[in-house]
Amino acid sequence: MSAGKDVFGDRIERSPPTPPQPFFHSRWVSAPEHVRDLGPTAGLPVGFRAAGVACGIKPSGRPDLGLLVCDAETPVSAARFTATGTPAAPVLVSQERCRLDALRVVLANAGCANAATGRRGLDDAAKTQGAAAMAVGVEEAAVALASTGGISQYLPVEAVLKGVLAAHSELRREGDTDFQQAIQTTDAFEKRACLEVELPSGPVRLTAQCKGAGMISPHFATMFCFVQTDAALSPETAELLFGVCVKRSFDRASVDGQLSTNDTAILMCSGSSGVRIVPESEDELRFGEALDALLRQLAILMVADGEGAARIARVVVRGGHLPSAEAAARGVANSPLVKAALHSGDPNWGRIPQAVGGALLGTAPLAIDIALEGIPVCSAGAAIPYDENELTEALRAKEVEYEITLPGEGAETEVFFSDLSHEYVTINADYTT
Amino acid sequence: MSAGKDVFGDRIERSPPTPPQPFFHSRWVSAPEHVRDLGPTAGLPVGFRAAGVACGIKPSGRPDLGLLVCDAETPVSAARFTATGTPAAPVLVSQERCRLDALRVVLANAGCANAATGRRGLDDAAKTQGAAAMAVGVEEAAVALASTGGISQYLPVEAVLKGVLAAHSELRREGDTDFQQAIQTTDAFEKRACLEVELPSGPVRLTAQCKGAGMISPHFATMFCFVQTDAALSPETAELLFGVCVKRSFDRASVDGQLSTNDTAILMCSGSSGVRIVPESEDELRFGEALDALLRQLAILMVADGEGAARIARVVVRGGHLPSAEAAARGVANSPLVKAALHSGDPNWGRIPQAVGGALLGTAPLAIDIALEGIPVCSAGAAIPYDENELTEALRAKEVEYEITLPGEGAETEVFFSDLSHEYVTINADYTT
Repeated sequence: MSAGKDVFGDRIERSPPTPPQPFFHSRWVSAPEHVRDLGPTAGLPVGFRAAGVACGIKPSGRPDLGLLVCDAETPVSAARFTATGTPAAPVLVSQERCRLDALRVVLANAGCANAATGRRGLDDAAKTQGAAAMAVGVEEAAVALASTGGISQYLPVEAVLKGVLAAHSELRREGDTDFQQAIQTTDAFEKRACLEVELPSGPVRLTAQCKGAGMISPHFATMFCFVQTDAALSPETAELLFGVCVKRSFDRASVDGQLSTNDTAILMCSGSSGVRIVPESEDELRFGEALDALLRQLAILMVADGEGAARIARVVVRGGHLPSAEAAARGVANSPLVKAALHSGDPNWGRIPQAVGGALLGTAPLAIDIALEGIPVCSAGAAIPYDENELTEALRAKEVEYEITLPGEGAETEVFFSDLSHEYVTINADYTT
Repeated sequence: MSAGKDVFGDRIERSPPTPPQPFFHSRWVSAPEHVRDLGPTAGLPVGFRAAGVACGIKPSGRPDLGLLVCDAETPVSAARFTATGTPAAPVLVSQERCRLDALRVVLANAGCANAATGRRGLDDAAKTQGAAAMAVGVEEAAVALASTGGISQYLPVEAVLKGVLAAHSELRREGDTDFQQAIQTTDAFEKRACLEVELPSGPVRLTAQCKGAGMISPHFATMFCFVQTDAALSPETAELLFGVCVKRSFDRASVDGQLSTNDTAILMCSGSSGVRIVPESEDELRFGEALDALLRQLAILMVADGEGAARIARVVVRGGHLPSAEAAARGVANSPLVKAALHSGDPNWGRIPQAVGGALLGTAPLAIDIALEGIPVCSAGAAIPYDENELTEALRAKEVEYEITLPGEGAETEVFFSDLSHEYVTINADYTT
């Protein structure tokens, strides 16, 4: 990934290539047999239209405003947002003024996060929400907002208002390509999918547009994920399935442990296929499997993007109680020492007990087991013999697995993470505003 | 700082230059008027002898074993260790088998951390403790151990035992120079001081040898700080003063947020000067001021070392309650985004509210104030106008100050931290074992 800089302190962006093919390719995601990849240009499910335009937020003049509309009479939705203490204005407005289980519209922009903007930021966001509601002809509470870009910059509201009108006139079912372009910033490749899910009650379509290279730069902070389906879900089912699947995907991904001010994930269901997802049915099970695989693969794509990552990893922690397992997994995933070793394929695994110990204070001495790529290197807290050449070879994989076992029965958790590269420093230090 | 690699996976070390002169030079440390810098070669206080030898732990053949002895009849000491859940064997042995208020000997080695070594590591450590006790002629409980080097490697006990005898035969009051050499690894410069402290009851000497470039590499993880004085302190006074001063120095320093398995800080008091530090006396106040300034300057030197750091910073958080202020300060100090911006002098301060928000979940919306080098950039959570040229110029300082104010009266805390540089990645990724 190359990053440049233009005179306004924005980075020069290239049109990112289409998603890696096949879409399901990670060892950590099993594509269910009943899910078929239609390819990125298959278009949105019935009942959805989208568009993306350039309205002038990005100094580069590239697309920066996306509009996504669900035309169903009674759409159902579910949403998740960043847990940060300093959420951006669009997050606050979406959380506080929307019916999150009945969203009809998403208005998303890149180039400005509208974060650290106080009351004026909230007013600006509300104006754009109102404009989108008026253009589409829905209640304001049906319009969710999502912004990504520089923190501390105020939103150019006039530009956005014009952009809403332009985008509205271009809405179409194949508009997800333009929508995807408009929500991206420095993404090295597109992260989206069009899937067909074969359910006992009939086929449904499941599509997603995702943005983010982790939180690698607050200039372009934020992950977005917008998911659409023509399956018919009740609000409770949408909430349940989306909540579980987000927890197993984006909540498990870390590039640099930096929580964005703008993270937003929204599922919208048009029901236009006529296939109803009844709770505790085989339909629900299979739809859930498809949604889970989709979001996990997207999360792994995000981790793999953004730092010119040489390789990515999954750390699995078993045993102990869940808060400890979670802290240990995050401690390893966010350790710059572990990430630097991952980058170079360094078999110096001593950084792993160091990171676990630093995350679990007051537990000394902690008798942990560690295995890398299935090769045990540490048992009950002590180094054990292993074949160094075999380990070195194994750590050259594109996807590396670390397994840690804490004392005691119990929890199991996982975190996906990327390495720490010179590219990361270059992107975040060398290109100054 | 350049780092090389030899055939055994150890890094090539150079003899580090003597400490920066004058010793007290940071804007964040005021050298008390009653403290005089005697220069690094003035020697230990009366009642102390030290030595450093090469016993073969480091493949490079450089000094790797240090012995420090207090010859006083009733020495007084205080000690602090890493809080990690995975402490090294020497830490466990020192904590569990020593009289930490009456230490007479420190046996310290570089080149092997004796961490992640389980029961054998404990046995190995105990053997070296026994050997040092026998050589000096003291109880084992009077011998503290400290090791630094590769995690997961077993200690070459035979080499250490021979080294103990060699070091014992070279003990002398001017041996702190050799001792300092023997505890260092990739330190770019020495971190030590010989001070004279003028107290109302008479002059005392205060010396320290310190090791560490943060936790930049578990190959050479660990900070050590050994402090000696010929002042006479009661165990309670030593414990109190040392505890407070460690909290205000090493506990406030972060290079990469990585907690070592081996951190060790030990104060030893010979009492040989005859000057007694009576609790709540002017002597205690002035001695405490000197100790505080010494440890803070050493902590700042550690932060400034190790990554070819372009600049270091202090983040001060005021307001709120202490756990929040502490979490916010650590969140900023350990944010790779903030650290990358610090490195390049980037005025992109949006990374600061992002880091604070990520550290303080469930507080949204958090109305924080932010000032950089005294220039306010954010008020009540919203960007405010400032002179960009003035800010850019101010951020070019070698030591940069960030001030954050949380809502509400209350806490105040500070953390010193270094930047994130290419050098960090080079040291931790490019040189593989």
